[in-house]
Amino acid sequence: MSQFKTVRGMRDFLPKDAEKIRYVEKIARELAHLYGYEEVITPVLEHYNLLAAKSSEEIRERMYAFKDLGGRRVALRPEFTASIARLIATKMRNAPKPMKLFCTGSLYRYDEPQYGRFREFWQANYELIGSNEPETDMEIITLTNDLARRLGFRRYWFKIGHMGILRGILNQEGVAEGQQNLIMQLLDKKRWDEALTLAKESNISQNGITVLKKTLETKGKDVSQVLKTAKRVVADYDDAVAAIENLGKILELTEKSNVKFETIVEAGFARGLEYYTGIIFELYVPDLEIALGGGGRYDKLIELFGGEQTPAVGVAPGIDRLVLAMDKQKVSLKISEENKVMIIAVDEELRTKAVELSLTLRKAKIPVDVELMGRAVSKALSDADRRGATHAVIVGTKELKEGKVVLKDLKKREQRIVEIKTLSKEILKDTG
Amino acid sequence: MSQFKTVRGMRDFLPKDAEKIRYVEKIARELAHLYGYEEVITPVLEHYNLLAAKSSEEIRERMYAFKDLGGRRVALRPEFTASIARLIATKMRNAPKPMKLFCTGSLYRYDEPQYGRFREFWQANYELIGSNEPETDMEIITLTNDLARRLGFRRYWFKIGHMGILRGILNQEGVAEGQQNLIMQLLDKKRWDEALTLAKESNISQNGITVLKKTLETKGKDVSQVLKTAKRVVADYDDAVAAIENLGKILELTEKSNVKFETIVEAGFARGLEYYTGIIFELYVPDLEIALGGGGRYDKLIELFGGEQTPAVGVAPGIDRLVLAMDKQKVSLKISEENKVMIIAVDEELRTKAVELSLTLRKAKIPVDVELMGRAVSKALSDADRRGATHAVIVGTKELKEGKVVLKDLKKREQRIVEIKTLSKEILKDTG
Repeated sequence: MSQFKTVRGMRDFLPKDAEKIRYVEKIARELAHLYGYEEVITPVLEHYNLLAAKSSEEIRERMYAFKDLGGRRVALRPEFTASIARLIATKMRNAPKPMKLFCTGSLYRYDEPQYGRFREFWQANYELIGSNEPETDMEIITLTNDLARRLGFRRYWFKIGHMGILRGILNQEGVAEGQQNLIMQLLDKKRWDEALTLAKESNISQNGITVLKKTLETKGKDVSQVLKTAKRVVADYDDAVAAIENLGKILELTEKSNVKFETIVEAGFARGLEYYTGIIFELYVPDLEIALGGGGRYDKLIELFGGEQTPAVGVAPGIDRLVLAMDKQKVSLKISEENKVMIIAVDEELRTKAVELSLTLRKAKIPVDVELMGRAVSKALSDADRRGATHAVIVGTKELKEGKVVLKDLKKREQRIVEIKTLSKEILKDTG
Repeated sequence: MSQFKTVRGMRDFLPKDAEKIRYVEKIARELAHLYGYEEVITPVLEHYNLLAAKSSEEIRERMYAFKDLGGRRVALRPEFTASIARLIATKMRNAPKPMKLFCTGSLYRYDEPQYGRFREFWQANYELIGSNEPETDMEIITLTNDLARRLGFRRYWFKIGHMGILRGILNQEGVAEGQQNLIMQLLDKKRWDEALTLAKESNISQNGITVLKKTLETKGKDVSQVLKTAKRVVADYDDAVAAIENLGKILELTEKSNVKFETIVEAGFARGLEYYTGIIFELYVPDLEIALGGGGRYDKLIELFGGEQTPAVGVAPGIDRLVLAMDKQKVSLKISEENKVMIIAVDEELRTKAVELSLTLRKAKIPVDVELMGRAVSKALSDADRRGATHAVIVGTKELKEGKVVLKDLKKREQRIVEIKTLSKEILKDTG
């Protein structure tokens, strides 16, 4: 019966996987704190028009959109940036700039489920608002790089480009914005031929087509070489040249700041969202074809939502994709080994004593389970083993009379009788 | 223009409020860990039929339900327990019992927005599955009590009852389950008269009506007194008597375990959800009329979803309601004071040095902001002040040549020149 399954494209995370999701979320939040990004929370449900305004045709078509009971046209957010831009344009319009905001949560897109792509997914999101200095683009990349390092990826790289290159060519060729968006979307999907056909239909000059083609071919790992070539290719298009210079400046700044990462620069790189105006980038690891996260500069979105003209740059690392990449690369969570105690009362009368003891140990920050099923000590002990407990505490009548309990070290297979008042110390002493 | 606002009933949390939400969530997660509850994550979107199965007429009518693009009838979850029961009945059916699961996230109900009640809200959720020993009911209450203590509420109390009391009377009177649910729902809303009218219409005996009325009046702080009275009131109804005995046993166990809290026992207490079968309870503070969280025993839900017969008990503290209560009671977050550093380069050339330095300090876990807007030092310093920075680091040409920077303590209004290699130590030394 279908109602007893998850809905297609949705997932359950059982404890081992949920732990990884929460771990990446925690590292992402710590990073936000270390970089001075303050957390905000926006709703999962927003007005459809807000979310649709500057996403892309594809995303608009794949939103979970519906009417609420009050007849409002709403949708589940497919990404964070529109909500953050709304916030900046309204409730936070008077906050001092630059503003640095972090958020995290679930997002929804009705994509065809496939490896690494689900209809409910999680992202962390960092936005740096109110400045278009290249130093701010650099900070967003630096922060993303720092995240990849902290998670412990053995190898990863950035794919980097600049929206101003293709837009610069298409603008100068007089292609209307809507048509540009369609071309960009095809390029994002690597459907080059269709994109070029559409460009031709948009009355681009023969030179324009040649430049577009060459731009798409201009890519590689040698940053300065690629940028030099790209500049020569787009030489006739002033805004495209300026975009390449801006990109060069940002990458020069990261290098000078001693921030190191592998890069593939692609002059013809396009991302799925329509609101980008400057640098764009994505993070990759060797074993996965999908991007682990991406971001870029968007200088006009906040204006569009009624705010002042406010330049901004941001990145959204995919939390569940980062977990997938960690699994692929066999990167382990940096979690310190901890004690885990099972308290077992030898008879029913002593169970309340076991509970009382558990509260004391928890105050000393020791994770404690109490045998509550009334099982015999031997059964409870093997259950403790199976659950990975490091210690068992056995509460028996004889010892209790002297204010003592039996402490079993389940790893070393040793046991000793200890005073209750020193119990937490005794357990903490055993920590590896 | 309505699309630039949040949808009615939805909220944005700006940094100060978001911090509180994340704080309560963190405490709730730590508590789960200390009590041995493992975290799982289930989707926000589930099949409508799953969520509707055993909630209540009211909740069913107020779900955010719609058809997805594939024509599936789906809804945003109004609570967690149905999803957890689905998990237990399917993917976790072979996990060893008792199972202890924790989850946290956002929930959705189309209620009329009012003080403390929103259409998107957050809960933590603890479920103890696979045992009906009164010790497990006690653990759930103990854990909830521990949460209230850890959050630092000055005063709070539990309202406690048992579904078996009213159900025991109504069952013995031969009232059909659907009718019982309607009566319970009215009682939950404190619409006593309507509930009693409906009971009369359900052909309950005159004695039944009298007993029901008296049951509703039986409540108070003196646990043993209330239970004694209640037992006398329902003496003719065996299952109701057994329910009171079960309730007495649970409360006796908490007392013996030295777990202390204020209690109001209400023999006629009913909660909104249909799946409860045993003890039910809610947590209150003096300054708010709404419950901060609630829970109870549900022994038949997992069976209903195709699992084995599996008794269970759980509690769902409301995260945003706990924050509201903390605000009301002026309870502050227990967050340790921390350094916060702003690094300012005196000229553009030195900005990359500032970024490099920021990375080093962040490795030492010091939160750092870098002046990225290219503002003059004096302007940047007043901005640092406004943002609550404890220190400013000024990177100047002269000092840098000697491997040094200027460290300003913004609280003490003192400054000194320090070596870069000891900078993080110098900053950490200043911690209060």
